[in-house]
Amino acid sequence: MKTIQLDDYNIQIGDIWSTLNTFLKERNYSKIAVLVDDNTHQHCLPILEKNAPNFNFLIIKIAAGEQHKNLETCQKIWQRMMELGLNRNALTINLGGGVIGDMGGFCASTFKRGMDFLQMPTTLLSQVDASIGGKLGIDFMQVKNSIGLFKNPQAVLIAPEFLQTLPFDEIRSGFGEIIKHTLIDNAKQWANLQAITDLTKVDWPTYLAPSLQIKKRIVEVDPFEKGIRKALNFGHTIGHAIEGWALETEKPLLHGEAIAIGMICEAWLSHQVVGLPMTAVDEIVAFISRIYEFYPLNETAFPDFLHLMTKDKKNENEAINFTMIQPVGKAVINQTAAKELILKSLRFYNEIGE
Amino acid sequence: MKTIQLDDYNIQIGDIWSTLNTFLKERNYSKIAVLVDDNTHQHCLPILEKNAPNFNFLIIKIAAGEQHKNLETCQKIWQRMMELGLNRNALTINLGGGVIGDMGGFCASTFKRGMDFLQMPTTLLSQVDASIGGKLGIDFMQVKNSIGLFKNPQAVLIAPEFLQTLPFDEIRSGFGEIIKHTLIDNAKQWANLQAITDLTKVDWPTYLAPSLQIKKRIVEVDPFEKGIRKALNFGHTIGHAIEGWALETEKPLLHGEAIAIGMICEAWLSHQVVGLPMTAVDEIVAFISRIYEFYPLNETAFPDFLHLMTKDKKNENEAINFTMIQPVGKAVINQTAAKELILKSLRFYNEIGE
Repeated sequence: MKTIQLDDYNIQIGDIWSTLNTFLKERNYSKIAVLVDDNTHQHCLPILEKNAPNFNFLIIKIAAGEQHKNLETCQKIWQRMMELGLNRNALTINLGGGVIGDMGGFCASTFKRGMDFLQMPTTLLSQVDASIGGKLGIDFMQVKNSIGLFKNPQAVLIAPEFLQTLPFDEIRSGFGEIIKHTLIDNAKQWANLQAITDLTKVDWPTYLAPSLQIKKRIVEVDPFEKGIRKALNFGHTIGHAIEGWALETEKPLLHGEAIAIGMICEAWLSHQVVGLPMTAVDEIVAFISRIYEFYPLNETAFPDFLHLMTKDKKNENEAINFTMIQPVGKAVINQTAAKELILKSLRFYNEIGE
Repeated sequence: MKTIQLDDYNIQIGDIWSTLNTFLKERNYSKIAVLVDDNTHQHCLPILEKNAPNFNFLIIKIAAGEQHKNLETCQKIWQRMMELGLNRNALTINLGGGVIGDMGGFCASTFKRGMDFLQMPTTLLSQVDASIGGKLGIDFMQVKNSIGLFKNPQAVLIAPEFLQTLPFDEIRSGFGEIIKHTLIDNAKQWANLQAITDLTKVDWPTYLAPSLQIKKRIVEVDPFEKGIRKALNFGHTIGHAIEGWALETEKPLLHGEAIAIGMICEAWLSHQVVGLPMTAVDEIVAFISRIYEFYPLNETAFPDFLHLMTKDKKNENEAINFTMIQPVGKAVINQTAAKELILKSLRFYNEIGE
């Protein structure tokens, strides 16, 4: 098992079950709740229960999907916590993807002014992305994660067997964050990554630890996203806007799918604003469009995209904030781009599909 | 001006205006929002604006009253924050009583995962009670403060002139917390306090600093209410339940009014459980019933009171947790009482009115 030590908690990757059992026994929580969605209730909870048979898990079940990452679902979770008689000496285990981790952590941190929680991410995306940094929250008024807080879990336990329960789309979505970590911080790995042609044959755990180390290093330097942590937002300014918008349509995008589009647009912006060579942009476009299906961006939605970007919480003084890259493997934070240039980057993406 | 220094912020009592102006100038926030209710919008905001004329205050106004300290109002506040274009580099000034401070602090701490806030308490209750300890939150499912978190403001600025805008009831409510601080920690002052016969003639600022010092000492030792901070809950286990219940009736109680009832019941419980002399209970009853009107507790509501007490977030393992006193001036935390004894303490209160 691999352990990544952070300031006040550990991330364990691999055979996490003895760690979990020891933790639960030592802490002796008054009650243990497990937050699941429809999917993890069916596919992951049995694995947890089989591997920790001596504990009484109280189940809090919510509907699956980003569209439920909102205040209405929080109310259901808090209400259920109340009904189960949880208090500050209880524990919540968040068993699921990013929505479960972000929203469950937010609800646990604010229920009775805060109880402990464990993150057990079950998707590749949440294993590689959401498990470091203590960012918790929900979407509000179509703006992603606009209500939330920073709070660390007691531990993050990553069990690779959960990945086997995932549909291919979810694996591909998680891969987006691995691409991002590579592009902002690991030029060397960029060559290896481009050699990947079949996502079903990748040994994911070998990619998780290096990706988490990148995020760890960045987040520890800048826990509250005042500076360099913004590097992690590459692809996310445009990607989040597209994701938020698509959520309201008949064809919502998974997070990594939206971020993949965002990385193409923002790689092009990096060329325009900070001089990333066009050859590098072309490489990124070629690789991403080999992995992800083309998703045409409707020109009539462009004003909505811009509107959502102006509401991004990373902005200062109303300028839209970007993280760019130059060269591949190095992030350049706190960049801005005029709205006309942003629109051109969206059109650049659309041309890929032509 | 008096200054009480806490670990990471100060409380200023008196002529706070130059402090405020210097703070706002130095920090150079992107925007400054002021959260007010109907009352403080009319009576307190003009005082703030007169004394800080060089700043552009964006107003967030909500309806006044504890019944609005809920998630619905939070949504309105967050929505307005969004519309005003606030971000993490903005400031919210909470100008009002405990509801404004608790809910405004909660909303600021969770908007875009957290922005700075200043507490400017305008009621005696919030000046003496809510300004130390970083407890923020809202009521949920009739349980007071059951959703919230611990987060410190940038500063607490207490301007005595706001007290002149208060109705007498509000002064009397705030006085309840001063009585409580005295009973749990200051036997010497108990004699002085009992000499008070006319609340309209009290010089409040002289009582604020000692009361705040008591709370400061307790909270600094135990910021997350694991132990001695529970001393501050004297009168609150029963008081909160009565307050929560009364909120749904035609005759809601102010916080201090409910706590006054709670202190009588819990003084009687202190006699029964930890041996507080009955003469001390009689003194407390005599003083409190001279100041506060009798509020008959309907026997049919007793099961509701008990139900609300069992949901109190200070409970452990489902026993109802009390802070008792023995002798006057000394708190005894983590006491419990059987439900039948709690019911008797409510009947003891009712007998005062006979």
